[in-house]
Amino acid sequence: MEYRIEKDTMGKVQVPANVYWGAQTQRSIMNFPIAQDINKMPKEIIKAFAYLKKAAAITNFEAGVLAEDKKNLIGQVCDEILEGKLDDQFPLVVWQTGSGTQSNMNCNEVVAYRAHVINGGNLLDETKYVHPNDDVNKSQSSNDTFPTAMHIAAYKILVEVTIPGIKKLRDTLAKKAVDFKDVVKIGRTHFMDATPLTLGQEFSGYVSQLDHGLRAIDNTLAHLSELALGGTAVGTGINTPKGYSENVAKHIAALTGLPFVTAANKFEALAAHDAIVEAHGALKTVAVSLMKIGNDIRMLSSGPRSGIGEIHIPDNEPGSSIMPGKVNPTQCEAMTMVSAQVMGNDVAISIGGSLGHFELNVFKPVMIYNFLHSARLLGDVCVAFNDKCAEGIEPLRENIKKHVNNSLMLVTALNTKIGYYKAAEIAQTAHKNGSTLKETAIALGYLTAEEFDAWVKPEDMVGDINL
Amino acid sequence: MEYRIEKDTMGKVQVPANVYWGAQTQRSIMNFPIAQDINKMPKEIIKAFAYLKKAAAITNFEAGVLAEDKKNLIGQVCDEILEGKLDDQFPLVVWQTGSGTQSNMNCNEVVAYRAHVINGGNLLDETKYVHPNDDVNKSQSSNDTFPTAMHIAAYKILVEVTIPGIKKLRDTLAKKAVDFKDVVKIGRTHFMDATPLTLGQEFSGYVSQLDHGLRAIDNTLAHLSELALGGTAVGTGINTPKGYSENVAKHIAALTGLPFVTAANKFEALAAHDAIVEAHGALKTVAVSLMKIGNDIRMLSSGPRSGIGEIHIPDNEPGSSIMPGKVNPTQCEAMTMVSAQVMGNDVAISIGGSLGHFELNVFKPVMIYNFLHSARLLGDVCVAFNDKCAEGIEPLRENIKKHVNNSLMLVTALNTKIGYYKAAEIAQTAHKNGSTLKETAIALGYLTAEEFDAWVKPEDMVGDINL
Amino acid sequence: MEYRIEKDTMGKVQVPANVYWGAQTQRSIMNFPIAQDINKMPKEIIKAFAYLKKAAAITNFEAGVLAEDKKNLIGQVCDEILEGKLDDQFPLVVWQTGSGTQSNMNCNEVVAYRAHVINGGNLLDETKYVHPNDDVNKSQSSNDTFPTAMHIAAYKILVEVTIPGIKKLRDTLAKKAVDFKDVVKIGRTHFMDATPLTLGQEFSGYVSQLDHGLRAIDNTLAHLSELALGGTAVGTGINTPKGYSENVAKHIAALTGLPFVTAANKFEALAAHDAIVEAHGALKTVAVSLMKIGNDIRMLSSGPRSGIGEIHIPDNEPGSSIMPGKVNPTQCEAMTMVSAQVMGNDVAISIGGSLGHFELNVFKPVMIYNFLHSARLLGDVCVAFNDKCAEGIEPLRENIKKHVNNSLMLVTALNTKIGYYKAAEIAQTAHKNGSTLKETAIALGYLTAEEFDAWVKPEDMVGDINL
Amino acid sequence: MEYRIEKDTMGKVQVPANVYWGAQTQRSIMNFPIAQDINKMPKEIIKAFAYLKKAAAITNFEAGVLAEDKKNLIGQVCDEILEGKLDDQFPLVVWQTGSGTQSNMNCNEVVAYRAHVINGGNLLDETKYVHPNDDVNKSQSSNDTFPTAMHIAAYKILVEVTIPGIKKLRDTLAKKAVDFKDVVKIGRTHFMDATPLTLGQEFSGYVSQLDHGLRAIDNTLAHLSELALGGTAVGTGINTPKGYSENVAKHIAALTGLPFVTAANKFEALAAHDAIVEAHGALKTVAVSLMKIGNDIRMLSSGPRSGIGEIHIPDNEPGSSIMPGKVNPTQCEAMTMVSAQVMGNDVAISIGGSLGHFELNVFKPVMIYNFLHSARLLGDVCVAFNDKCAEGIEPLRENIKKHVNNSLMLVTALNTKIGYYKAAEIAQTAHKNGSTLKETAIALGYLTAEEFDAWVKPEDMVGDINL
Repeated sequence: MEYRIEKDTMGKVQVPANVYWGAQTQRSIMNFPIAQDINKMPKEIIKAFAYLKKAAAITNFEAGVLAEDKKNLIGQVCDEILEGKLDDQFPLVVWQTGSGTQSNMNCNEVVAYRAHVINGGNLLDETKYVHPNDDVNKSQSSNDTFPTAMHIAAYKILVEVTIPGIKKLRDTLAKKAVDFKDVVKIGRTHFMDATPLTLGQEFSGYVSQLDHGLRAIDNTLAHLSELALGGTAVGTGINTPKGYSENVAKHIAALTGLPFVTAANKFEALAAHDAIVEAHGALKTVAVSLMKIGNDIRMLSSGPRSGIGEIHIPDNEPGSSIMPGKVNPTQCEAMTMVSAQVMGNDVAISIGGSLGHFELNVFKPVMIYNFLHSARLLGDVCVAFNDKCAEGIEPLRENIKKHVNNSLMLVTALNTKIGYYKAAEIAQTAHKNGSTLKETAIALGYLTAEEFDAWVKPEDMVGDINL
Repeated sequence: MEYRIEKDTMGKVQVPANVYWGAQTQRSIMNFPIAQDINKMPKEIIKAFAYLKKAAAITNFEAGVLAEDKKNLIGQVCDEILEGKLDDQFPLVVWQTGSGTQSNMNCNEVVAYRAHVINGGNLLDETKYVHPNDDVNKSQSSNDTFPTAMHIAAYKILVEVTIPGIKKLRDTLAKKAVDFKDVVKIGRTHFMDATPLTLGQEFSGYVSQLDHGLRAIDNTLAHLSELALGGTAVGTGINTPKGYSENVAKHIAALTGLPFVTAANKFEALAAHDAIVEAHGALKTVAVSLMKIGNDIRMLSSGPRSGIGEIHIPDNEPGSSIMPGKVNPTQCEAMTMVSAQVMGNDVAISIGGSLGHFELNVFKPVMIYNFLHSARLLGDVCVAFNDKCAEGIEPLRENIKKHVNNSLMLVTALNTKIGYYKAAEIAQTAHKNGSTLKETAIALGYLTAEEFDAWVKPEDMVGDINL
Repeated sequence: MEYRIEKDTMGKVQVPANVYWGAQTQRSIMNFPIAQDINKMPKEIIKAFAYLKKAAAITNFEAGVLAEDKKNLIGQVCDEILEGKLDDQFPLVVWQTGSGTQSNMNCNEVVAYRAHVINGGNLLDETKYVHPNDDVNKSQSSNDTFPTAMHIAAYKILVEVTIPGIKKLRDTLAKKAVDFKDVVKIGRTHFMDATPLTLGQEFSGYVSQLDHGLRAIDNTLAHLSELALGGTAVGTGINTPKGYSENVAKHIAALTGLPFVTAANKFEALAAHDAIVEAHGALKTVAVSLMKIGNDIRMLSSGPRSGIGEIHIPDNEPGSSIMPGKVNPTQCEAMTMVSAQVMGNDVAISIGGSLGHFELNVFKPVMIYNFLHSARLLGDVCVAFNDKCAEGIEPLRENIKKHVNNSLMLVTALNTKIGYYKAAEIAQTAHKNGSTLKETAIALGYLTAEEFDAWVKPEDMVGDINL
Repeated sequence: MEYRIEKDTMGKVQVPANVYWGAQTQRSIMNFPIAQDINKMPKEIIKAFAYLKKAAAITNFEAGVLAEDKKNLIGQVCDEILEGKLDDQFPLVVWQTGSGTQSNMNCNEVVAYRAHVINGGNLLDETKYVHPNDDVNKSQSSNDTFPTAMHIAAYKILVEVTIPGIKKLRDTLAKKAVDFKDVVKIGRTHFMDATPLTLGQEFSGYVSQLDHGLRAIDNTLAHLSELALGGTAVGTGINTPKGYSENVAKHIAALTGLPFVTAANKFEALAAHDAIVEAHGALKTVAVSLMKIGNDIRMLSSGPRSGIGEIHIPDNEPGSSIMPGKVNPTQCEAMTMVSAQVMGNDVAISIGGSLGHFELNVFKPVMIYNFLHSARLLGDVCVAFNDKCAEGIEPLRENIKKHVNNSLMLVTALNTKIGYYKAAEIAQTAHKNGSTLKETAIALGYLTAEEFDAWVKPEDMVGDINL
């Protein structure tokens, strides 16, 4: 490979000849050979940096501290990054400095050197027209840019991937809840037969979980909308022009179309990432919901002959390499695996979030890596589960009917007629004898056949089915 | 010990002669000899049951399904429970059935039998005037009462213990932030010397963390305010009179003075406890904040001679059994230990919350046990930390001054004057030579003594100090 | 209440007149009003301190630095503590200083003052015959005593409660595995019908899990057997007589009957508690196993009419306050709740364990609190589950037979005869038509009735049943 | 793109014309569009499959159920996979079916179709010479191959990456412990000044942590060495030839050079992955150790002027984009971030491990994904930390000397001379007056200057320094 020489404040570094990055990026590649093939800094962070570098350039220009042509050049490169044209210029991994300084410098270098080239310069020029620190990073520090990029990336993925994915699944389940609203089925509590409900009611519970989950995520967006930018090195805003914080937040809001504002307190914004912890807590709540839903669906569809067998889910692929004809609830499995992952990611984020010291938290990359992972997984898995499973769910009415009619727990309807104790005696006797409730109730002399038929009707035991 | 015989639907059970509980409570004692001396069902749950049993009795009476005298008797016993007079009548542990049925029955039995005695009856009477199931538990199931008690207990402890505790600490820290607003000190990022800020600014970051944490908790109260009561066995509301759900929620709201409402979807309310997961996520966020604050305070106060030593915290007790005269940041230690506990509790809650099946989640007791533990610990530790540490924090001005004046990072003020690279050269040279920035800057010929004095002023580098 | 005045190096403190503790214990009560009613320092730690104080006194006597009568007095009080006679003299909570200094001093004070009284002194005497620091704590520091007490308590509870509890359950399951070894039943993978196995084989998997879990716990005992005592303040052993570390470990080993040794490296032993982290990792592995076992048992016993219904578990108590005659798998629920708790405790322990600084880890109390909690819960729940559930498990042979005979996955036996693809066609066709495998196989022309009967025998598909 | 048609038991699927995979792989791509760019099935699993498919082919051949030429063809393709020549033929993600069936089939298809091509066939041939199910998967099921691949991959990465990485760091720290064995420095407990020790002793604690961590990992290898292969569909070994389990394990052991054996109980081996949980518990213990070490190193090196400043670590890169000349402990940050990640991964693994049902755990991919992630991160970060930080650590003797000499805790040496209370008075008075211990001791009249000099010598307070 051919190289060129770049330098930074520590001296010279050999850099591949035709890359746009410079000395500091290269140092990071050499210093952090940690899971380099699998843990690149997430692309969402790179794009977030593009928004903020462009916004900073505009703000600096407006404040009179950056020349217009430099502002334009910087903006042009940022647009290229957003278009994905420079994806291969960001080789760094998550496991670098905990402030993300090196990814900030990677961005500064790529923007500066690419701008230099756009401006007619050559990568071999010792001095570049646009300077990584003095121009691209003007009025900034890694300490305020990286957390700003974290919030931009987190907010964007939530509104673009996570929330729409959950909503899609929520809407399908809501449609099913309506479709199945009069399918009376046995209830199960403690995994044991209980009083009846409708399949629609059962599904309405899932919808309610996701509705609450969406609201929980939504509640965390305000904190995420606060940007650290303008705090620079330690939160005091040293080396920023007047009005910078507010203006740069406005430009970021305009560029992203999202309601970002400057954080009222920059010291928190650099030293703690509670907004990430808080928002991921909401994601984890959704993961908890999805575990419940995924488990229910796989159990309800279990069988085909020796399980619960009350719903049919789509057959998407052969399920076994050895058992011919087997079909499995694979979408449920992907969803519940995602749930486990998100619960694990939550711990990594909490630990990282708790360990800031003084003016800086240096667990930034691990926090945002896990956050984006969870946000992406939840969004994607909801869509896959929706498209390949939820939409195709159908009740298996015959099984459902058989289960509900056999149920001893229909006896509960008699509590208010003959009291809990006599009702219990009927159920226990029927269970012991393998007889029906009706036979047993009559045999015990507690009611007549007519009374039984009038009082014990599954369809009368399900309450309001128009949710 | 003397015994009497009680019976339930399964038969007879020997019960200590003079306790108010009955057969089902006794069975649970015998069936669950698990950590009985340390893990009693939390008292907050017992009191929450008292509110709900009383509210249910009133609602049942108003609906015409419970006699007035029974309503009054039930209410009277519930008041005794709330006054703590029957504390020793609730012997059950957390590790029982996952629906909390046995604690619900413990409550039903104690209320019924105590009512019977108040009504002139005797515990030895085979038939009691008030019946545990048919009267006290009327229009209820464990499946809707236990989650209702969970929400009542959780909401109450948050507004009575957790939030006031956090607020107390928050207010003291806010006062300190004002008191210390012009104490210019060195900043530290990556645990390394950085540009200056004021001690007040540093503390304002803690205040902002707690403000956001309080908001995060507040955001979760709406979900917690939803009550399952009225869903009975599986969410359909079987065996409840018309209007019961709404009315019983109103009575609970009136009795507790808290804005409880009936849950719109009872199926979720029984089968999932995402509200607990969500709310504990907010508590965990606060725990994460407290870990940061506790660590900072102990590090800032470290020394007395070989640490950071920038603040003094109160000397509360001798700190060592072997090192005479040693004083330690013990309140920080209690606080950070609580933080670790809450982060652990969060995992237990999430796992429990994720594992509901069909119409019921049977991890109710473990979930609320951990929730109440965290809520209590956070509230208590904030008060202790506040009273015994935060209120007494004072700056050690001499050390603070020495640190800030020595700092090489004051060079950052020169970035905008001479550029990042020359500034770096000054700092690196001074570091290597053990010289001051000023000497070095002049020696390198980058600026004059006058320029240095004019440009490098710590007090000019701290931005807006009126937060 | 009446008080007396005690003092420590910080001054005077009012102490209840007739308690054996002194100034430092009292300060801790006042300084840490945190969950005082629910989180007392575990009694196992108090007893561990009794062993170590007695062992230290003997060792000090043998080294010639403690008088014989003081050694005897100290030993006598320690015996009283071990007999539980002084339980009410240990009022401190977990949430104190992170080194446990105050519990060490609580012990020092109680031993010294009680010794003084045994020796004929009076609690009101200003000078006590035995001194908390200079005598009881001689050659010790909180920093080496508390971790020593942690290891003593942890090791003891593992061998006395946890391991025997797990073994009891393991042995019962092993017996069931033999009892059920020829009960051919349907297998289930992905919760879906699969090829058959025997119920005994299914249970043998649980046994194998617990065997491995026991081995995992056993593997961690060596690290737990290493004692910090002798390291004193920072690990150097300052203020200890020659040979002290080895001798005191020997005396502790003799007193407890457990193979304790002095830790080769005292710096680790004070500053890190990886042994606790490691051992709890093994406990968590067992918790993971128990979650699987508990879930399986509740699902296998589900029904009675609309579930899996392949085993019967004992009916221990009425299962519902509203559904008469309902019985639930409550022991499974207690066990899986414990599992969730232990997984949460593991996180608290790991976080605490990771946050030692320099010469000391100050998360000691929270770590051992969670460890003892888990160890106790696992031991107790295994015994309860064993006695009230596992021992009474019986197969429901009729259901088992019906399920296995209906299964489409018996077709797997044909893979080696007619190939995977044709076998799949048979299973899919039978599923679609609701027909039997045999009918379908013949109708498709892939084999004869005789071949089917010869090749598809569930009892031939279960391999070696003598495990 | 050009396509060809492949089919499986469910019908036809369009597959890219020139890939070696077939219908089932393609279905998985379409059914699981979940994080496809970032969560490919780890390459270590693919290679593990290559070992096992080759071993299975050999074993099948030896058992007389696979033709020799097919055995050779299969082995040849497996070798190509191991050489990395077919890396782009494994497009599936972690988030697929929880049994990993699709990755098993991906492997079966690629091996079969590539073998067909090597054998002179064409991908467009409707029938391939080697069949994915009937040949490559012969005597196997996903249910036993995937857990076998998990154990192979886990064992290999531990012995090839994780353990050597930890050992490398351990050895460097051990060398430093010797190099620094007589550098007397102040101890710190509770982050507060304490009695002295040597820097070598401090480092010896880290070595002891890692030694115990390595032993903990080693203890888990036996369980990981047990292979599920031979259990096939549900653990009974249906469709395997006699002796298959033992023989295939021997071949895998021979091919990998690792001591694999067949699992004694296949039911556990399919339905639970406690070996992964257990082994990751050991990895988490090491993560806990590394958090301690990383924190200590960054704090010891903090400054350069206003921190602890007792060691120098290498300057690897400019540390700030805004503060010129700043250098940060970035390797510590990468290491502690990894620690947080591993603690999070542990929770994901435990949850997945706990949720097997009946004969199968279907959280296999998420478990092994997290395991391999942790194992890789720990190994890599130890090497990076070693090479870029630990090897270059040097004491800053001047600071060290200043700290130890100023320390008030040297007073501890006087406990055995004048008692704890008088020693405390000296320390407290000196602290209050800002005076030295010696001045104060003399002024208080407790000892002479000569006595002080004789008794208070830091170098005499550090015990045995030859560890």
